[in-house]
Amino acid sequence: MSIAFATSAAFLDALDRLPSADTAARDAALARQAQLTKPAGSLGRLEEIAVFVAAWQGRERPRIDRGRIAVFAGNHGVAARGVSAFPPAVTAQMVANFDAGGAAINALARAAGLELTVVPLDLDRPTRDIVDAPALNEAEALAALNAGAAAIIPGLDLFIPGEMGIANSTPAAALCAAAFGGDARDWVGPGTGVAGDTLAAKHAAVDAALARHRADATDPFQMLRRLGGRELVAIAGAVVAARMARVPVLLDGFIATAAIAALAAYHPAILDHCLAGHRSAEPGHARLLDRLGLAPLLALDMRLGEASGAAVAAQVVRAALAAHDGMATFAEAGVADA
Amino acid sequence: MSIAFATSAAFLDALDRLPSADTAARDAALARQAQLTKPAGSLGRLEEIAVFVAAWQGRERPRIDRGRIAVFAGNHGVAARGVSAFPPAVTAQMVANFDAGGAAINALARAAGLELTVVPLDLDRPTRDIVDAPALNEAEALAALNAGAAAIIPGLDLFIPGEMGIANSTPAAALCAAAFGGDARDWVGPGTGVAGDTLAAKHAAVDAALARHRADATDPFQMLRRLGGRELVAIAGAVVAARMARVPVLLDGFIATAAIAALAAYHPAILDHCLAGHRSAEPGHARLLDRLGLAPLLALDMRLGEASGAAVAAQVVRAALAAHDGMATFAEAGVADA
Repeated sequence: MSIAFATSAAFLDALDRLPSADTAARDAALARQAQLTKPAGSLGRLEEIAVFVAAWQGRERPRIDRGRIAVFAGNHGVAARGVSAFPPAVTAQMVANFDAGGAAINALARAAGLELTVVPLDLDRPTRDIVDAPALNEAEALAALNAGAAAIIPGLDLFIPGEMGIANSTPAAALCAAAFGGDARDWVGPGTGVAGDTLAAKHAAVDAALARHRADATDPFQMLRRLGGRELVAIAGAVVAARMARVPVLLDGFIATAAIAALAAYHPAILDHCLAGHRSAEPGHARLLDRLGLAPLLALDMRLGEASGAAVAAQVVRAALAAHDGMATFAEAGVADA
Repeated sequence: MSIAFATSAAFLDALDRLPSADTAARDAALARQAQLTKPAGSLGRLEEIAVFVAAWQGRERPRIDRGRIAVFAGNHGVAARGVSAFPPAVTAQMVANFDAGGAAINALARAAGLELTVVPLDLDRPTRDIVDAPALNEAEALAALNAGAAAIIPGLDLFIPGEMGIANSTPAAALCAAAFGGDARDWVGPGTGVAGDTLAAKHAAVDAALARHRADATDPFQMLRRLGGRELVAIAGAVVAARMARVPVLLDGFIATAAIAALAAYHPAILDHCLAGHRSAEPGHARLLDRLGLAPLLALDMRLGEASGAAVAAQVVRAALAAHDGMATFAEAGVADA
């Protein structure tokens, strides 16, 4: 059985009751690291990652037998304002490309030994234009939350949420501003590569949406339903459900991280089970990670979404666990300690 | 047949005749990247890596069927000056650990699907103390160069040189200073984690070695034999041999990169077939990469050596090639281009 939220109040209530990591497993993993045949600390963030995953998986020697990527897809009414380089039809075309195995995330998931599920969310029913109205009504937002939560099936060792949705860097920027302050100038970037009039339209849409909704965006659910979109709300639901199941999460780029910005602004502990997989080339992402206090594992100038950056980062996590599990101790190897 | 250098002059001559990459393969890979189902440039450095490997492998769709790590090990007379946190016996103990499969590099090589060869170089005959004399005589240095070159067996798709040698961050710092100027203050760091008197001894040893050898270190061979050590000279030989075979090289941390600093100072093109796998926590490495104009793929605060950082970076290279090879084009997928 996967997790489901009966009401928006139940979702908000879950945020007040987030489970913690397993401190005994964390301590055991730390003790193991201290005995492995290397100078103390010399594997740097690999050591930190291994201990983090141990703590959330609740075992001294964690592993990723079943790592899952879920790419959520949605369409956006605000696309009609000309904020993207691509037409909205591309969302469904890319979902078909995911299903056929031809997108970047297919290749990267295969390379990382991760399963991939693609969750299109009512692509023929775009959200309302956030400049004019809340993107989703309460029932629609709850459905999207639960579509996200349903991706957290039993037995996962790692979860990576991703997104696809033409125009969705516009609601993502609005969500960041609603969560952490500032306006379009702080959070809007080129997305898939827009400039000129398209970029100006994006700035205008974000500022107008903020003017319309800021006063009513008084909790994470309201922020997400008013300024977000189905795939963004689904990511928030999935990350909370992962936490309830103590499944560690590897975050992707600007848009996927923006989807949990509203949660983090009210409940900073939601980040405790999350690692930042990479820092996107989208300028708002560095600012967002800084606000969240997350240090990305990778910074490879990627800006594709689809969970692509996190899928590459999953290989770093695998490397960390491989060293943690596979290395000999000083005693086992007969090597002199410092 | 592997490559061998008959004399030091033959080695220096090879540096004047370095082969170039395959520009036709590079152009074909660039053209392919432009057609894949993603916004142009959105895979960032993954695109650049795929094109780089294509150019050196000479094929539009490169692959790593056979990637090889060679860890060269050597002992250092300068260790007697108390420059390291570990005793010299640990070099042979760690070689035994490599052979038994218990070191970090064993686990990381397995995780990355790379073969590992370990090459101990006369561990019972440490180099001479570089404060007093050249580390190696000409015959010894040539033998070490060729031990490195011998690691480049036919059929390699990627090569990663690594090192193990108690005290070898001392000659590495001396080599950087000889190649790029400066003194111990610029290039000496904590290595495996030294401080206080040990760190002071390291500074003193580097400055004294530079005072003794700088005037005579007039070409890369002389620099390497006077200030280096067997594993460092072997890495230089391996990187040149890889170039002669057009095998792309992924560099590890401070010490492995310092091993080619002397080559790069005289022959900057030696770097053309090299990617920087990671930036070590050892402070001199950031400075060295900056001097070399290399942007590391990873920066995970690792500082172990053994090729460990490059082995993790190999997963990024694999991800780059997986996306390049596995993705559909816009035409194949029926996705609208921007």
